[in-house]
This record gives sequence, C-alpha cells and structure tokens, in this order.
Amino acid sequence: MPEARIKYTDGLQFVGEADSGHAIVMDGDTGVGGRDTGLRPMELLLLGIGGCSGMDVISILKKKRQDVTSFEIGVNGKKADEYPKKFTEIDVEYIIKGRNLSDEAVKRAIDLSMEKYCSVKATLEGTAKINYTYKIIQE
Amino acid sequence: MPEARIKYTDGLQFVGEADSGHAIVMDGDTGVGGRDTGLRPMELLLLGIGGCSGMDVISILKKKRQDVTSFEIGVNGKKADEYPKKFTEIDVEYIIKGRNLSDEAVKRAIDLSMEKYCSVKATLEGTAKINYTYKIIQE
Repeated sequence: MPEARIKYTDGLQFVGEADSGHAIVMDGDTGVGGRDTGLRPMELLLLGIGGCSGMDVISILKKKRQDVTSFEIGVNGKKADEYPKKFTEIDVEYIIKGRNLSDEAVKRAIDLSMEKYCSVKATLEGTAKINYTYKIIQE
Repeated sequence: MPEARIKYTDGLQFVGEADSGHAIVMDGDTGVGGRDTGLRPMELLLLGIGGCSGMDVISILKKKRQDVTSFEIGVNGKKADEYPKKFTEIDVEYIIKGRNLSDEAVKRAIDLSMEKYCSVKATLEGTAKINYTYKIIQE
C-alpha cells in the first residue's frame, strides 16, 4: 500500500487513508458541486503546519519543564489570485497559556520548530512565505 | 477566527479545525511520545495532494461524460534524511476504472489538474518534485 490512498466515493467526496491507519473525508464546497461533508484539501496544509509545529513546540516546552495549561495555534493562508491559486503566504500564531512561563523558553521552542525541525513548514516554504508570531498568557 | 485553529489536548494530540467547519485529530507515533490517535501532520500533505487533484480530475471527466466506475489515487512521499526532513519527491498514481474510457480524456484531465489547477500540487512543488502516472482499467 502507498503511504496515502485516496478513494473516490461520489460528488466531490474522497476518503483519504494514510499509512498510520487513520482516515479522513475530503469534500468540496456546495458552490462547486461538493456536499461539504469534509475538509478541503488546501485546509489540510494549514492544519498540517499547525499540528507539526505544535508537536515540536509542546515537546520542547515539556522537556524544559514549562507549565503549559493551554496551547492553541491559529493559521491563515493567503492564496494567489490566479490558478493554480497556490499559497503564497502563511501566517502562524501561537497562543500559549501557562504558569511562570519563560518568554525565552517559549521563543526558543518556536524558533527551533520553525527553523530546524518542522517538516511541514520546510516543505511549504518552497512556495509560501511563512510568518510567525506568538502570544504568552501568564495564569 | 483564523482559517485553521489547532488546539492542543494532551500527549502529542491536537485537534485541528478549519474554516469549512470540519475537524480532525492529529497525533504522533507511540515511539515519539504520541498515542497514535490520529494522522501525522506530514500525512496531511499527501492526502491533500491526492484529494485536490482527485477533485479536479473527476470534475473534468464528468464534464467529458466519461463513465468512471471507480477512482483511486496512491501517493508516496520521499523525505530528506536530515532535519527538517521535508518532502523532496512525491509520486502520485491515478487508477481509473470505467466503461469505454478515453485514454486521451483521462490523460488530459490529469495533465490539466497537475499543470494548471491543483493548488496543493502548486504549493508543494516549490520543494518537492512531483511525479505522476496513471493506469486505466476498462470494465
């Protein structure tokens, strides 16, 4: 089996199954003939960069014994106007809440992910400029 | 709300929610501290290119009144050995089954998707070389 198998059902709906054994439904907008039963393929890229970097950042912060109580990442993508309407810019915002968080530790964890470890970011940045900011909320 | 919001739960598990209103679970392998409850972020890129191009291809083939009875896409990604282990090459294989399928129509639909319409392909090809092949099975 290939690493990912995408099987057509009907309309614009596809079920994608990956090597890890997990599956998702993808579908198009009702405006283009889909039934909106699942994620748009382009949304997967935004979720992917957030999840990938999020896993790096939380792993590093745990190793640094930072007491994170909540962690959320917002991702916005800007597409080209012309076909194939690729992402030209992606903004990632990390919002980290915790007790006695070290600003230095948080900044370092995010920089390490974005500049060294995050495979999704490194794949997307060949086309899209990736910007990132973070917000720390002390509890 | 941003187009995608990725919220940390625990372990390496994140729930990603996108603008379309659909959500997925992402998680890491048990070998790296995850619980394998969801897709790996890098898998989302492979599913995304398959879903994106699949939607193009099936739309075009329907317009050309091709009688497709089954359609599947296999995607394999090759990663760099060194961090950030980005995708360097992605192979996409289309397997299209149908009645009286026109080889020319199928080839043209796939070429149009890959060379003109598919936003995910256009975003990933800044870093990864994208190869594609197709197989037609007449019923």
